[in-house]
Amino acid sequence: MAWTKKDLLGLEDLSREEIELILTTAESFKEVSTREIKKVPALRGKTVVNLFYEPSTRTRVSFEVAAKRLSADVINIAASESSVRKGETLIDTGRNIEALKADIIVVRHNASGAAEMLARNVGISVVNAGDGWHEHPTQALLDIFTLKEKLGKIEGLKVTIVGDIAHSRVARSNIWGLTKLGAEVLVCAPKMLIPAAIEQMGACVTHNIDDALRDADAINVLRMQFERDEENAFPKQLGYFKNFGITEERLKKAKKNIIVMHPGPINRGIEISSEVADGLNSVILEQVTNGIAVRMSVLFLVAQGRDTKDATGNSPSL
Amino acid sequence: MAWTKKDLLGLEDLSREEIELILTTAESFKEVSTREIKKVPALRGKTVVNLFYEPSTRTRVSFEVAAKRLSADVINIAASESSVRKGETLIDTGRNIEALKADIIVVRHNASGAAEMLARNVGISVVNAGDGWHEHPTQALLDIFTLKEKLGKIEGLKVTIVGDIAHSRVARSNIWGLTKLGAEVLVCAPKMLIPAAIEQMGACVTHNIDDALRDADAINVLRMQFERDEENAFPKQLGYFKNFGITEERLKKAKKNIIVMHPGPINRGIEISSEVADGLNSVILEQVTNGIAVRMSVLFLVAQGRDTKDATGNSPSL
Amino acid sequence: MAWTKKDLLGLEDLSREEIELILTTAESFKEVSTREIKKVPALRGKTVVNLFYEPSTRTRVSFEVAAKRLSADVINIAASESSVRKGETLIDTGRNIEALKADIIVVRHNASGAAEMLARNVGISVVNAGDGWHEHPTQALLDIFTLKEKLGKIEGLKVTIVGDIAHSRVARSNIWGLTKLGAEVLVCAPKMLIPAAIEQMGACVTHNIDDALRDADAINVLRMQFERDEENAFPKQLGYFKNFGITEERLKKAKKNIIVMHPGPINRGIEISSEVADGLNSVILEQVTNGIAVRMSVLFLVAQGRDTKDATGNSPSL
Repeated sequence: MAWTKKDLLGLEDLSREEIELILTTAESFKEVSTREIKKVPALRGKTVVNLFYEPSTRTRVSFEVAAKRLSADVINIAASESSVRKGETLIDTGRNIEALKADIIVVRHNASGAAEMLARNVGISVVNAGDGWHEHPTQALLDIFTLKEKLGKIEGLKVTIVGDIAHSRVARSNIWGLTKLGAEVLVCAPKMLIPAAIEQMGACVTHNIDDALRDADAINVLRMQFERDEENAFPKQLGYFKNFGITEERLKKAKKNIIVMHPGPINRGIEISSEVADGLNSVILEQVTNGIAVRMSVLFLVAQGRDTKDATGNSPSL
Repeated sequence: MAWTKKDLLGLEDLSREEIELILTTAESFKEVSTREIKKVPALRGKTVVNLFYEPSTRTRVSFEVAAKRLSADVINIAASESSVRKGETLIDTGRNIEALKADIIVVRHNASGAAEMLARNVGISVVNAGDGWHEHPTQALLDIFTLKEKLGKIEGLKVTIVGDIAHSRVARSNIWGLTKLGAEVLVCAPKMLIPAAIEQMGACVTHNIDDALRDADAINVLRMQFERDEENAFPKQLGYFKNFGITEERLKKAKKNIIVMHPGPINRGIEISSEVADGLNSVILEQVTNGIAVRMSVLFLVAQGRDTKDATGNSPSL
Repeated sequence: MAWTKKDLLGLEDLSREEIELILTTAESFKEVSTREIKKVPALRGKTVVNLFYEPSTRTRVSFEVAAKRLSADVINIAASESSVRKGETLIDTGRNIEALKADIIVVRHNASGAAEMLARNVGISVVNAGDGWHEHPTQALLDIFTLKEKLGKIEGLKVTIVGDIAHSRVARSNIWGLTKLGAEVLVCAPKMLIPAAIEQMGACVTHNIDDALRDADAINVLRMQFERDEENAFPKQLGYFKNFGITEERLKKAKKNIIVMHPGPINRGIEISSEVADGLNSVILEQVTNGIAVRMSVLFLVAQGRDTKDATGNSPSL
């Protein structure tokens, strides 16, 4: 199959075949970063704009490296310095970037749906780098890529996601992607951190970490952001680590080869112990490496998808 | 004619022929941004430094894209992180950038005359990206380029500029450029926003927006920066929009094909209505597109001009 | 000899031969910045990450220009926006950068030893761009390069360093480098700004500026950072300039051709007079130019050194 979408907004919108196409394309791009000269000319003369309304060094840098390895020109716009401070709307900012004849906007925004709204209002490609609590599709794609690389398949796997499910776009994108590819997803968290409609997305729920680990092929440990609630952060952290923290002791009761994932940055001793984070089951740094390949794949495909649209004249605003 | 200046500091200093040379050169560069591979090697191996003492995402990004499409290396320096905070003078900063063997400094500064002072003290090219209330030559050049593209000529046009003329470098540069090319310029604003010496620059003045629109071939709507005066911003905004805001109703009394321009970012409902900003007369996004072509032209020409100077040994500090 | 180290952490660790190799390699790179096309393909397809925990426009820009002239891709990470704010450790940040398949981390950090700790924990190259009060090796290398270029040799030279020796990584790196190459180093400052163990490093001490200047072939004037102590800054500045400021009058008692250096940014009228800073003895801007050549040399050599390590399998974490 060929990729035909001009944007990547979320995994909810994608078919199983589209997800698999991204993963297969990423496999071939992974090799590029192992070369002596880590560069291919795929996007030479294209302009990729990183438009970040929330600070995120990790994701911005990963997209920037991916775009540069495809030979694209990269422009970084941080909200703190942007015209937004002068009251410009997201749509106006997007249309201005389109008018620069940029090719792809990679957008991170604190409002759910921001990437989709932007994509509907510009003719160029939009890649969602995280929108509110909604989706973070490239993170889930790199998680799934890593799982498939380690375990050979996704179909039939049991994957547990632990942490603040309610406020996690990473969890949502993982649930959409994994269930489409035939995995079973179990989410585990204290009651207040489980959103109401999670089971309608196809996930099962538990509040007991040992239950959550028992049959899992992989566990994806989400970052706990206690620093946002500084007053009570310390006692909360202690309690969370005691009840939900992923430790060597807990892993002993799980499958011997369970894969431990984390989107980073990790909080050592809060949601995960240092021993586990640095241990043999951890693939946390391999996720970072795979993030480059997956983002190269996504940037490459949406650029193609847009060209397809251009040719047929079906793109929304061209 | 050939370009011989090492700098672009303002339109007041340029001859009609020099302005026309920039516009003609921009025409040929405009095509580059429509190519599959949007890049020419004109400035390969050259270093362009964006030195911004005021935040301005729009102008910085436009220059950065322009320089990269010419294959230059681009270095961004934001004042907030710069040595300036450590008390270094603008001239010392400029001489240090020259010592890096950079080729062009694009400077935005809150003091009128800053770009000229810098240019006098370094041997490399300086492009003024806005200095205080003085000039913003590349903005005016892209406005004029757009007008010429739409209406075929500048000679004999009637162009109205509406807004805070007193504090607008965009207005000043437009008046210099348009009058040199034979257009008539009318400025329109409340009395307190008209500077004393504006008629000596060659512009006519009115305080009535309907008079200002009646015979105009084009109107350039300046951004109102009420956000700088937060306390009384809201009532002022209402009053301004009522008396000077550009609305569809007002445009009905103007020429049918009047061109509506705005340097951006636009304040919808403050100086311009959304209907007009997005309407058929608006060329606001085309201005953004043309900004790339005009800035490619300027960067290319000053680099040539400097080489000319180098050859004859006439450059001030080489 | 061939370079075999994967990192450049400080001059204390280097042999005389290694320092000379960096200087010789820098000589050949200096020519690149005088070409019409200032670029060589030496690091094409390599990724250099500037990881700056302290703001430093000068050093960051110098490394960025150097890397780009070697055709590397450059990623800038400023601490203010980085994951560090989210509590990630330096080692975790470094390992994440390594996982991106970056090749070189240029690190500036406020803690002495930070660069070394990072280098021990990643397999890729680390270049110290200043760690606390410890070392700033590329600054000292460019100082030494400039001295050698001006005076033909280092062996036997008398070099005076004036200023806040106690808190200066520039002074420490210069002392290590100059003494290894056979120069005599004299440090001059008020008593409270001389560290206890300075003579064990091989430097002599004086508190009298005229003594310090009498036989010196070169003087390296350190920046005084009174702005960190705002309350008493002004009287301190006056007193310091009177007793230690480098003026034309004081230089008259020194050797006629004494070389005046300063790592910048200069405080005119605080540690140095404008006449001296801009005078015939000053090589301050030549130091900036040479900084590019020296940093190109260092980036090129550590990239080679890492490849050597890779081949033999001796690199710490590969």
